[in-house]
Amino acid sequence: MSIKDFTPSRRQLLSAIGTTAGSAAAMQAMAVLGHAAESRFTGPPQLTGTRKGASVLVLGAGLAGLVAAYELNKAGYKVRLIEYQGRPGGRNWSLRGGDTHVEVGGAVQKVEFAPGNYLNPGPWRIPHHHKTLLHYCRLFNVALQPFIQMNHNAYVHQTDAFGGKPMRYKEVATDFKGHVSELMAKAINQGSLDDKVSKEDKERLLEAMRSWGVLDKDMAYTSSLKVSAQRGYDLPPGGGVGGAPTPSAVASLSDMLDSKVWNQMGFYFNYVMQTTMFQPVGGMDMVGKAFAREVDHLITYNAKVTKIAQNAKGVTVTCEDMATGAVSEAKADYCVCAIPASVLSQIEMQAGDKMLASLKAVNYSASVKTGLEFKRRFWEEDEAIYGGHSFTNQPISLISYPNYNFFKDGPAVLLGSNAGGLGGSLLGGMEPAARIEAILAQGEIIHPQYRQEFMSGVSVAWGRVPWNMGGFSRWSDEARKDHYANMIAMDGRIVLAGEHASYIGGWMEGALTSAIDAITRLHKRTQEA
Amino acid sequence: MSIKDFTPSRRQLLSAIGTTAGSAAAMQAMAVLGHAAESRFTGPPQLTGTRKGASVLVLGAGLAGLVAAYELNKAGYKVRLIEYQGRPGGRNWSLRGGDTHVEVGGAVQKVEFAPGNYLNPGPWRIPHHHKTLLHYCRLFNVALQPFIQMNHNAYVHQTDAFGGKPMRYKEVATDFKGHVSELMAKAINQGSLDDKVSKEDKERLLEAMRSWGVLDKDMAYTSSLKVSAQRGYDLPPGGGVGGAPTPSAVASLSDMLDSKVWNQMGFYFNYVMQTTMFQPVGGMDMVGKAFAREVDHLITYNAKVTKIAQNAKGVTVTCEDMATGAVSEAKADYCVCAIPASVLSQIEMQAGDKMLASLKAVNYSASVKTGLEFKRRFWEEDEAIYGGHSFTNQPISLISYPNYNFFKDGPAVLLGSNAGGLGGSLLGGMEPAARIEAILAQGEIIHPQYRQEFMSGVSVAWGRVPWNMGGFSRWSDEARKDHYANMIAMDGRIVLAGEHASYIGGWMEGALTSAIDAITRLHKRTQEA
Repeated sequence: MSIKDFTPSRRQLLSAIGTTAGSAAAMQAMAVLGHAAESRFTGPPQLTGTRKGASVLVLGAGLAGLVAAYELNKAGYKVRLIEYQGRPGGRNWSLRGGDTHVEVGGAVQKVEFAPGNYLNPGPWRIPHHHKTLLHYCRLFNVALQPFIQMNHNAYVHQTDAFGGKPMRYKEVATDFKGHVSELMAKAINQGSLDDKVSKEDKERLLEAMRSWGVLDKDMAYTSSLKVSAQRGYDLPPGGGVGGAPTPSAVASLSDMLDSKVWNQMGFYFNYVMQTTMFQPVGGMDMVGKAFAREVDHLITYNAKVTKIAQNAKGVTVTCEDMATGAVSEAKADYCVCAIPASVLSQIEMQAGDKMLASLKAVNYSASVKTGLEFKRRFWEEDEAIYGGHSFTNQPISLISYPNYNFFKDGPAVLLGSNAGGLGGSLLGGMEPAARIEAILAQGEIIHPQYRQEFMSGVSVAWGRVPWNMGGFSRWSDEARKDHYANMIAMDGRIVLAGEHASYIGGWMEGALTSAIDAITRLHKRTQEA
Repeated sequence: MSIKDFTPSRRQLLSAIGTTAGSAAAMQAMAVLGHAAESRFTGPPQLTGTRKGASVLVLGAGLAGLVAAYELNKAGYKVRLIEYQGRPGGRNWSLRGGDTHVEVGGAVQKVEFAPGNYLNPGPWRIPHHHKTLLHYCRLFNVALQPFIQMNHNAYVHQTDAFGGKPMRYKEVATDFKGHVSELMAKAINQGSLDDKVSKEDKERLLEAMRSWGVLDKDMAYTSSLKVSAQRGYDLPPGGGVGGAPTPSAVASLSDMLDSKVWNQMGFYFNYVMQTTMFQPVGGMDMVGKAFAREVDHLITYNAKVTKIAQNAKGVTVTCEDMATGAVSEAKADYCVCAIPASVLSQIEMQAGDKMLASLKAVNYSASVKTGLEFKRRFWEEDEAIYGGHSFTNQPISLISYPNYNFFKDGPAVLLGSNAGGLGGSLLGGMEPAARIEAILAQGEIIHPQYRQEFMSGVSVAWGRVPWNMGGFSRWSDEARKDHYANMIAMDGRIVLAGEHASYIGGWMEGALTSAIDAITRLHKRTQEA
């Protein structure tokens, strides 16, 4: 190791960069060094030369509709944004004390959370590489704070592993790599991989296994203080007299396999789940509200779209006022339709068969997200869990801990379920009260404090959300192949936008990038017309 | 998967808990469920029945001395705290614009950081299980914010790997588990582990390898969109037209091994490094300042201890006023000496040979920590790195990104070096200006923007810090065996405290737990006397 120990050619390159000016040179250097782009985002759309008086109707004030309205308005279009609900944001949504949530079927939940506490029923975390969203958060002064994703101290729970006892992630993940590395070292040492790995790489692999797996001098994974310095101690180190720690016992290979901890290890490696993630301070709906501050004068709330018609001259959208029932028509040159496919497929729209078919081709998740308020932050106080998720194979799927007001006294809200698939169907099929009872029964397996500390809960079953009829889009590979191009292609004077019209399904970034692409194409069309 | 799919015996147990009251029952339940304690901390010391008029001299206003003074004063002792420097906290320290740092040898550095920016030259992160420290932060209203430890998007750099090109952690770590799992699957499939693993576990291991390694249908680790959904894409997914992503190329086994990424993978698994970690809002010295607010009236600043004497009746400490040179004596019944062993070993102290020998038996690190201020947060803006560390085998060892003011415009300070071992010696041996130049030269290998954006820096070489003469204690196993008990044993009327007198060396928690143990024993002694 020496301070001169770097490659001369790189040094020359970097020195040359130092003589040129500005961040563009640095970015160019990054490209020279071969770093892939983290995002396609290179700045907001540049829509210039807008034809005077050109008008656009935007349908749906979710993030796709909001960004379309904002950028089209900025570019000089005459814009009107029509929204079914009485608030902006769509699935960009937070529920707070005093709010009411009514499900399909009529079940009413009144949220009773203490001031400052909230549930984000829809999107709840922002990846560091979702640069379009981050751009608008910065532009509109939406304060962000870290969303703790990975937590070594949260639980991994499988009903049939470790006698049903929840284990700390650090315990089972350390045991996973310990056992895998021990077996790998054995295979290497008995020559099993001689025809696949060079002699030199074998030596390096053994060193990697020893280090990564924390193996002992015999290349075995055994209980020790070194291993406990990863998986936790029986008695942690202390100060003064009796400060010496005692090691914890490692789990057997077979017990470790019961935990299926590789699912969590893989989860944390998922590109969209990787650290560092963020959330808006005060609730996810700060994003939608920030957009709405910019375009509020363009929005008609509480207007249900019942028909979308078009001809060679323009678009006519029929709306019903949700309060009065009054029917009205809105007209414009073009339409950006950012209504979810799950809802739009049920609205009469004058468009080609291909576009209409595409709306029915995409599936929607039916996830169930539930906020539970407790008297105190027992997960922090009793169990040293600050943010992150505990995973379980029960229908609730996980318990996720709040990333705001750490260490504070008083009531706090955690996410008691994020159920998808069969679990989502099971829980979503229940009435809210029964659903919350089931969610408590599952959660107390992980946190025995649940019943003692529970105050109230609110549960959003996305399959029962009247204005969305599902959670987020889930394209099968086959449907994507047959229908995606038809969905996004401009049909006459109508173009669709939303997370369903992107390859970033289920994420706000998908809604924004889809809408920006749609309006960029629409703008180009108006230039050609 | 069913909502009734849990173990009845546990259910009965938990149901029984639900009928008893309060958090104590829940904690007891946790113990029944077999969760190891995350910390030994069960609350602050309970020192009752203090003998009227009993007095204690505490030496050193680092965290050990501060907590000793606070708790002894609270318990009714007459306390005086003597500190060499003009500020409280010791190594709990932050450097800000306007501060001056003078090294042994006389080199002076004037800090030029913009308001609000700082370097924490000493401790800089708080593990979630350091409950003693967290207790006092909460008690004294020290606001904490997350310290981002793990960052999948930061760099892993080895001068002799990938042609010297820094790689993203996600890239090489994904490749590591891909190649390891592929080789493991091969070894399993050719029967190499048949005598070590049951047939059932073999099947489960194969499933684990396929999932964890993201192997293809032939159990090979190859470039694909699935793999790119962990290691990153060549072209990430987007919205609308052309939204489909393209995969990145995976590295070969041999190239991956060059990166030695298992060092970082192990680092993140280290018990004291595991998520979730915290830092005080505004700088680490908020902790020392908070303690000082409580005991400020007890502190004599700028007083150099030159002699510590004791007899059957009490302790006499000789001090020199750093401003006037005036010599004075302080007397008390007992002494808690929280001066670092590196300094105390050079002070005349009337104590047994065993205690004196113990002070020379413990080594100190000579790490070099450097704050660099840049015109803008290019690591965020250009590279989507928010907090966390990039690692390198150059002497600087790492670059660590600030965990406050994310997304903000204007100057920001990152940690440009955390050099230990040989790297610390190399950099610590240079004068500050040359040291910062070397640190920039190493850092620009990872961030080509360095020279363009650099404003100023300040570097703390702990081997040259006059009041500490080293960074933090590093006990060898042998020295610990021979000397630790002698160090912590009360010697007449003197008891030592500090991170060196703990098994949590180098951490504030070690200082606090050591001091609490020391005063608890001292208190007991006074009860017996």
